[in-house]
Amino acid sequence: MENGNNHFTNGVHDPSDTKGKVITCRAAVVYGPEEPFVLEDVQVQPPQKMEVRIKILFTSICHTDLSAWKGESVAQRAYPRILGHEASGIVESVGEGVTDVREGDKVVPIFNGECGECDCCKCPKTNICTNFGVNPMKTVMAGDGTSRFTNKEGKPIYHFLNTSTFSQFTVLDSACVVKIDSDDSHLKKMTLLSCGVSTGVGAAWNTANVQSGSKVAIFGLGSVGLAVAEGARARGASKIIGVDINPSKFSKGRTMGVTDFINPTELEKPLHEKIREMSKGGVDYSFEWVGNVDVLREAFLSTHEGWGFTVVLGIHPSPKMFPIHPMEFFAGRGITGSIFGGFKGKTQLPHFAKECMRGVVELDKFITHELPFDKINEAFQLLMDGQSLRCLLHL
Amino acid sequence: MENGNNHFTNGVHDPSDTKGKVITCRAAVVYGPEEPFVLEDVQVQPPQKMEVRIKILFTSICHTDLSAWKGESVAQRAYPRILGHEASGIVESVGEGVTDVREGDKVVPIFNGECGECDCCKCPKTNICTNFGVNPMKTVMAGDGTSRFTNKEGKPIYHFLNTSTFSQFTVLDSACVVKIDSDDSHLKKMTLLSCGVSTGVGAAWNTANVQSGSKVAIFGLGSVGLAVAEGARARGASKIIGVDINPSKFSKGRTMGVTDFINPTELEKPLHEKIREMSKGGVDYSFEWVGNVDVLREAFLSTHEGWGFTVVLGIHPSPKMFPIHPMEFFAGRGITGSIFGGFKGKTQLPHFAKECMRGVVELDKFITHELPFDKINEAFQLLMDGQSLRCLLHL
Ligand SMILES: NC(=O)c1ccc[n+]([C@@H]2O[C@H](COP(=O)([O-])OP(=O)(O)OC[C@H]3O[C@@H](n4cnc5c(N)ncnc54)[C@H](O)[C@@H]3O)[C@@H](O)[C@H]2O)c1
Ligand SMILES: NC(=O)c1ccc[n+]([C@@H]2O[C@H](COP(=O)([O-])OP(=O)(O)OC[C@H]3O[C@@H](n4cnc5c(N)ncnc54)[C@H](O)[C@@H]3O)[C@@H](O)[C@H]2O)c1
Ligand SMILES: [Zn+2]
Ligand SMILES: [Zn+2]
Ligand SMILES: [Zn+2]
Ligand SMILES: [Zn+2]
Repeated sequence: MENGNNHFTNGVHDPSDTKGKVITCRAAVVYGPEEPFVLEDVQVQPPQKMEVRIKILFTSICHTDLSAWKGESVAQRAYPRILGHEASGIVESVGEGVTDVREGDKVVPIFNGECGECDCCKCPKTNICTNFGVNPMKTVMAGDGTSRFTNKEGKPIYHFLNTSTFSQFTVLDSACVVKIDSDDSHLKKMTLLSCGVSTGVGAAWNTANVQSGSKVAIFGLGSVGLAVAEGARARGASKIIGVDINPSKFSKGRTMGVTDFINPTELEKPLHEKIREMSKGGVDYSFEWVGNVDVLREAFLSTHEGWGFTVVLGIHPSPKMFPIHPMEFFAGRGITGSIFGGFKGKTQLPHFAKECMRGVVELDKFITHELPFDKINEAFQLLMDGQSLRCLLHL
Repeated sequence: MENGNNHFTNGVHDPSDTKGKVITCRAAVVYGPEEPFVLEDVQVQPPQKMEVRIKILFTSICHTDLSAWKGESVAQRAYPRILGHEASGIVESVGEGVTDVREGDKVVPIFNGECGECDCCKCPKTNICTNFGVNPMKTVMAGDGTSRFTNKEGKPIYHFLNTSTFSQFTVLDSACVVKIDSDDSHLKKMTLLSCGVSTGVGAAWNTANVQSGSKVAIFGLGSVGLAVAEGARARGASKIIGVDINPSKFSKGRTMGVTDFINPTELEKPLHEKIREMSKGGVDYSFEWVGNVDVLREAFLSTHEGWGFTVVLGIHPSPKMFPIHPMEFFAGRGITGSIFGGFKGKTQLPHFAKECMRGVVELDKFITHELPFDKINEAFQLLMDGQSLRCLLHL
């Protein structure tokens, strides 16, 4: 049945049945800002040239999914859409020209691809890819400008962040698929390498290059912020100050290496003054995950004059500019952004995955909840309520 | 005649006559924004604890003196004042506790001191000094909060930028005096190490770390901008794009290593687009000396995504903020400021001076004019008219 339709029944899948065919499977589709996810059957086209179709086994929810679901940034609103970008799964089939992964490979999708060919991919200083870098406006596949998803009426459903993992099957550019050398028992937690943990640990290791004895401040103790703490702890940071308005994040933080806590709502002085006091002049590195320019400014001012360095990681949906006067750079503080923790996904993630399996970073600690796929709305609520770090959905 | 008054006659000076005494000498005093310099007799107190009194032999004029003379930034207006910060001279006497320089030493003053004791001085990553760093608001000596200069009526005259070199004698904190191992014939050109050339070359070498093959764009081809070009050329940069609205700077630039020129007033497209075109995607490093936030933004956007790095060096007297949105950092462009080219003055300038004497950087090329001290108003006019790079005044 060439290019025919194959209905996928949960749990039972033989690639030889589906290869080259349209697959019908369950996906969580969003139809408008903050509208509950609708679990429905969608049709997933076979992978085209340099594309890979993946059977998603696990997916989790990152704050970036939450922002997109809320439609916080008007420019990103495109519906209907399949969100999701943290996942792990198995290659179902590959399109023409794909040689580095094949049917049956265990993989994680990466929202920030690595084509290996562009000037940036060839430069060791960056993990940005000119061709398949993260682009929240992108809604279709790069190859032919169309979507691989359609609904029952045959209308296209938009892609999200190079990944769209809230679906039992999804199609990605091969630049966004990383093969992971993992046994079955570990694949589940590899989901966290797709975004949250890699982003946080990498920000500490690659972007900031935290050293033994460094002092660090982390603004926002979600998964990503706590992954920075894990990364900084692993590198031997001597002080890791965690800042969050949700005091319940503090006990979890302690197990991830956070040494000091600040709840800014309880402070009487500016946050940066408090942090400079606690760290004798300022921290070496600060990390901002909150996505608020005022918090970012506090993070910038919390670092030590002369060498302090701030890493921006939060998604800032507001058009508000970052308030900084050029003369302030003369105090010797630097700032840059970090996408996906500075990791070149295809080149560096397989090694990082091994490090995690050795226990350098404990992925399990980030999985606070697990739910079946059809409870996705509940899983979003857990993140919004600040109860979960990562809730893993079983597809 | 302990603490008595000794009138200094130009050219004739025996330290044993003046040590411990007040010296009367010529200085160029400014009494208000843009008011012509008044050459008058001032009294210079002996150096106090950890201070050094210097006989200035040569001084030159930097754009920072011009900004201060114009009173561009209201906060800096303090009159009467002795400006000037690029100079070379000889130690006349030292105050209590000064051990690293002594009477007769050849020295250059540095506006960005190095106390050697603060956290920043002890950190190899920065040349900012918490105790004697550049501070345009500072008008008196740190030791006792008073000035070492008085006019005929005994009224205090303010200090400027830790240096005040528009005077035949001046008093500095010893943290701001660097001994240079130079023979007499070279001392004159060492004046340029006090600020302009060190700032430019150091920005390329220390702050940006330009490498062989790097592409560079320089916004503003005054002495400091051209010194970046010299520094980038010495490091083997493959493309050095100079940007200036004054086309006469272009021929000089060519001798300093500038390979391509842009006059932004003649462009039909945004400057950064032109530069990205010329450099196939953007330069590796851009340097801004103009002191204008719109130009700074062009400089920022002229660098390559992924790794481009912008160094802010121009004094921005306007309260206008630098327009940047936090998400723009995700394109992987970084930015920082550079003071005095990142050189730790006391530790690193003596070696840099030797490099210059070896011809690695040709200081002579920066001296376009020489005039006697009493022609200081003329010298300012030359800089304002864009005719001089550095005009050297003989005191
Ligand atoms: N740069 C990247 O590559 C990248 C990757 C993943 C996520 N992100 C972004 O990182 C951010 C964090 O993601 P997450 O999944 O960890 O989110 P999360 O919702 O789990 O955590 C955010 C935390 O910030 C805290 N917070 C909110 N307002 C605060 C304030 N004013 N001060 C201090 N803390 C405050 C919340 O209580 C919460 O603990 C989001 O903006 C997300 O979009 C960026
Ligand atoms: N960061 C530091 O440590 C440090 C040290 C010394 C000087 N500075 C600053 O560096 C700057 C340059 O100093 P200088 O002595 O070389 O000055 P200068 O006056 O000799 O040169 C400035 C140049 O900028 C050009 N210019 C003006 N507007 C321009 C525009 N819109 N676009 C392009 N070019 C433009 C002028 O034509 C001139 O050639 C000043 O702002 C000065 O205060 C900083
Ligand atoms: Zn994410
Ligand atoms: Zn690429
Ligand atoms: Zn200067
Ligand atoms: Zn110091």
